[in-house]
Amino acid sequence: MTDGSPGARRAGGELLQDGLFFTACPYLDPEGTMSVVKLEEWRQRIVKELDDTVAFWLKYSHDTTHGGFFTCLGRDGTVYDELKYVWLQGRQVWMYCRLYRTMERFRRPEILEAAKAGGAFLRRFARVSSGQWKCAFCLTRDGKAVKIQRTVFSECFYLLAMDELSRVTADEGMQLEAEQMMEQLIHWVRVDSSGLGRPQLPGDFPTNSMAVPMMLLCLVHQLSEGRGQEVAHKYSELTGWCVQQILQHVQRDGTAVLENVSLQGGELPGCLGRLQNPGHALEAGWFLLQLSAQQQDSELQRTAINKFVELPFQSGWDNGHGGLFYFLDVDGHCPTQLEWNMKLWWPHCEALIAFLMAYSQTKKPELLQRFSQVYEYTFNHFPDADSGEWFGYLTQEGKPALDLKGGPFKGFFHVPRCLYMCELMLDDLLANRD
Amino acid sequence: MTDGSPGARRAGGELLQDGLFFTACPYLDPEGTMSVVKLEEWRQRIVKELDDTVAFWLKYSHDTTHGGFFTCLGRDGTVYDELKYVWLQGRQVWMYCRLYRTMERFRRPEILEAAKAGGAFLRRFARVSSGQWKCAFCLTRDGKAVKIQRTVFSECFYLLAMDELSRVTADEGMQLEAEQMMEQLIHWVRVDSSGLGRPQLPGDFPTNSMAVPMMLLCLVHQLSEGRGQEVAHKYSELTGWCVQQILQHVQRDGTAVLENVSLQGGELPGCLGRLQNPGHALEAGWFLLQLSAQQQDSELQRTAINKFVELPFQSGWDNGHGGLFYFLDVDGHCPTQLEWNMKLWWPHCEALIAFLMAYSQTKKPELLQRFSQVYEYTFNHFPDADSGEWFGYLTQEGKPALDLKGGPFKGFFHVPRCLYMCELMLDDLLANRD
Repeated sequence: MTDGSPGARRAGGELLQDGLFFTACPYLDPEGTMSVVKLEEWRQRIVKELDDTVAFWLKYSHDTTHGGFFTCLGRDGTVYDELKYVWLQGRQVWMYCRLYRTMERFRRPEILEAAKAGGAFLRRFARVSSGQWKCAFCLTRDGKAVKIQRTVFSECFYLLAMDELSRVTADEGMQLEAEQMMEQLIHWVRVDSSGLGRPQLPGDFPTNSMAVPMMLLCLVHQLSEGRGQEVAHKYSELTGWCVQQILQHVQRDGTAVLENVSLQGGELPGCLGRLQNPGHALEAGWFLLQLSAQQQDSELQRTAINKFVELPFQSGWDNGHGGLFYFLDVDGHCPTQLEWNMKLWWPHCEALIAFLMAYSQTKKPELLQRFSQVYEYTFNHFPDADSGEWFGYLTQEGKPALDLKGGPFKGFFHVPRCLYMCELMLDDLLANRD
Repeated sequence: MTDGSPGARRAGGELLQDGLFFTACPYLDPEGTMSVVKLEEWRQRIVKELDDTVAFWLKYSHDTTHGGFFTCLGRDGTVYDELKYVWLQGRQVWMYCRLYRTMERFRRPEILEAAKAGGAFLRRFARVSSGQWKCAFCLTRDGKAVKIQRTVFSECFYLLAMDELSRVTADEGMQLEAEQMMEQLIHWVRVDSSGLGRPQLPGDFPTNSMAVPMMLLCLVHQLSEGRGQEVAHKYSELTGWCVQQILQHVQRDGTAVLENVSLQGGELPGCLGRLQNPGHALEAGWFLLQLSAQQQDSELQRTAINKFVELPFQSGWDNGHGGLFYFLDVDGHCPTQLEWNMKLWWPHCEALIAFLMAYSQTKKPELLQRFSQVYEYTFNHFPDADSGEWFGYLTQEGKPALDLKGGPFKGFFHVPRCLYMCELMLDDLLANRD
């Protein structure tokens, strides 16, 4: 019906096979090694974008009165709403600390001070009542709770902030708080969710939503990194559970990743069961790839690449206009989400990380070609050459549909995390080329 | 930034002034009376569309096993999800009964039987537990509760269904149930909302959302119609309260209708306070016009037309591509709703009713010209010539973005209600022309 209707989308493209080799790949030198010139070109653009993005948020997002961050920023950085979304507060603290801790050029006092102020704001206001772990979803500028979600994600991003901040401040109390929050999260997810406040209804089946095991796996990675065997061991059973829960989302004889499955790993009825979220599957892909490298698990690596990187790309790429769809229905019905055919910034960020990581681990040239395809679309459509930072929400045809730079769900997170991780991976590829 | 950016949108168009007269109005005969040919042309198309729409839902939406209606219907009527949304169940019962009761050609047994089966399904399953008035938002095909909203709208549409069904079945118990539900709704809205289950949070100010007084006014109209002075008197104080609550949404020195205001009638901070929903304001407009006719209140009529019909049309019409935007920000910021610039079917339905009613009451030709403008856009973009019924969700440019005919929020309601009301109004205009 439109160029991007589920029917039209399926034309073109076949799954890459293991070992397939593009003889004319433009990112390989004639001898078959990768083009250093191309890698360096990508790296330079990514470094510049990361610098610009950090500068944008340093300039516009800080609330120097109350601490924490404004995230509702218009095209030119103007604050158009003062509400503080806890997901985005936690993510910005995490990202500032990660940059400060791991990249020399961001080891700057203003970044550390902003992260500390954000962390203090979260500690003071995010938890709805003292002694309880439930966090608000949204706060007023001065920290009063406006809304609570009956999910675990505010708490997850609170934890990410606390743990990463404790790494730069050496605050052991903060690290302990992160670990305690982890215990609470595990309890809610695996033992008893009643504390989240969702009513038990007879028609509401328990669901394995991709976001939950992905998020827990991300938190395990955060809490364990660089902390030795003891911590890794502490979370090893949980890690296995997360992987098993994520792999349950591969359905239809291995031909599709579905966003929601039953607790037994079966397909759910209706739209909920048929929903695909390609960007989310790609993000799960690089989470699994990261783990496969740590565990030197080549089987997991292969599954991650074939099922969670290549498959979602194949089903999610819009062959008509380029870019990744936001939502799809595995049977080709029209999704009921009004934004299904929009091109959002974050799935493209996840795809860039996933393909570059998959290439870094395997050196298969077709994966670098995919990275290049996503890179071209992303850098041709999302960055705002006039006012800096990236547009977040494009029409199917690739025009900005919303001109805001930050909002209730877009903060200082997916863009800088993608640029930061890609920069590090490109550094590594350039440093270790044959 | 795009053609439909809040900035670009503001070009063109000025508020019509009372008494402004378009000398070249194409819907007026040279003598200055309206063109009978044009009215008859509109009427014929509307009659045909209503017949086709009724036929579509009769054919595809009935669940003959469990009663009630499938509303998730694909482009060709295929059921793509079996969930039953209580808003849409109640609305379809109401619409079937209203057509059966008031239009000779729809006084057909199959319509009455489907309405009764829908009513029985609602009575058996919608209320979450016996003895309580809270209804589910969504049920499984066989009636198990899937989700509850912490608002009053499922209950409002339940009431609409019960009252209208009681009028065709003469079931006094059902009418009593509708009246009892009304008492519960008034209690939740005006006395104590704690039974709805929303947590009290310090940053969550109580808000006067346009939907609530509009809905109550609609229910008063439903319960009172044709039932004499005693019932009208019973609800007269509530009617006045609803009107006063709706009028509080006129803000900015009378230049804008805002969707959410404080309980004191002041503007709220941030995006929530600046939100405009032109289709909703237009719907409020014809609710007020209906009341102004009953009460012979020319002041209310003038306010309804100037503030709730003409003003939202002026702010909401997309001068670039035609059609009404879904959401806008009164200060021209980009709304955070991803679908803000889409063209939805229902605001156009409300605009058609509003302008035709305003014209019918005043005979001001500029209002008929507005009707024509909305009519042209609507009938050129929403009806699906291939498979029947209307597309619900268009891109800003007017292409179908979703090809479904029904979904969680689109059922057998806005399209047939609009066609039904416009047909009756055109009948009346044609019968009573000078």
